Amino acid sequence: MNEKLKIEPISNRNFEEFFHLITKLAEYEHLDPPDKGAKRRLKRDALSRRYFSAYLGRFEGQAAGYLIYFMTYSSFLAMPTLYIEDIFVLEEFRRKGIGTELFRFCVQKAKENGCGRIEWCVLTWNTPAIRFYEKQGGVRLDWYFYRMTGKQIDEFLSNR
Amino acid sequence: MNEKLKIEPISNRNFEEFFHLITKLAEYEHLDPPDKGAKRRLKRDALSRRYFSAYLGRFEGQAAGYLIYFMTYSSFLAMPTLYIEDIFVLEEFRRKGIGTELFRFCVQKAKENGCGRIEWCVLTWNTPAIRFYEKQGGVRLDWYFYRMTGKQIDEFLSNR
Repeated sequence: MNEKLKIEPISNRNFEEFFHLITKLAEYEHLDPPDKGAKRRLKRDALSRRYFSAYLGRFEGQAAGYLIYFMTYSSFLAMPTLYIEDIFVLEEFRRKGIGTELFRFCVQKAKENGCGRIEWCVLTWNTPAIRFYEKQGGVRLDWYFYRMTGKQIDEFLSNR
Repeated sequence: MNEKLKIEPISNRNFEEFFHLITKLAEYEHLDPPDKGAKRRLKRDALSRRYFSAYLGRFEGQAAGYLIYFMTYSSFLAMPTLYIEDIFVLEEFRRKGIGTELFRFCVQKAKENGCGRIEWCVLTWNTPAIRFYEKQGGVRLDWYFYRMTGKQIDEFLSNR
């Protein structure tokens, strides 16, 4: 419970604050932040195409954190899964229960949408995040996570 | 290249063959297969709600394998990701290049849909799958994969 926190959907009005938080998460994770083109696409995909659901956490009026989720699917359960792409709270707003409230918001959305599961990934070195998610009841699975990016995709397709 | 293989979308006509293959994958992965209710939901979600894309691989006319994918999203790239939920080839149809063709089909779909990435998970003990995916150019990431299921979701929500 956190009366000082308001969770609001991303809109034209708060998009700049939301985008700033995304770049702060990328910085925290030592990953490449979205560039100018990505910012434009992100706005379009969030507000018009609705490729994902995104919310801002406002603590005493200030943009303190955000979350992004979308629906995936489990073929064995035959039910949608709520996948958490990002949950992030700015350093200076930590230890106020904001992360827990953002996570709870996702869990409630999963319940409302009849999801059988909630899934997410955590960087293996991110001990604070791992501790946080295990405290919430998350279970680490024996799966490896694989990826091909644009360069590998093009190489694969040219090697016919 | 495999002229004996036809990849066809799941429809009312081939749903039973598709469902049989899903139960075979669950068996192979030592995971709970879909039950009767799941079968009903899977049909509805594949054919009417279109929560995911599913295709059957037919080798010389026989149902030999299947694939399921859906679109997720990368907030840092600000591009859709093609996520491969399942690629499976029945034991007796292996070593004919069918898995590679099913994977190639997914890669082409990613390209057609302007995806920045392709992602998937592999059980850590599934060495043949790991070898297969690394041969295709997949890169294992330093992420842990987390999950909450129905029981953990209900427990979390009751612990307010």
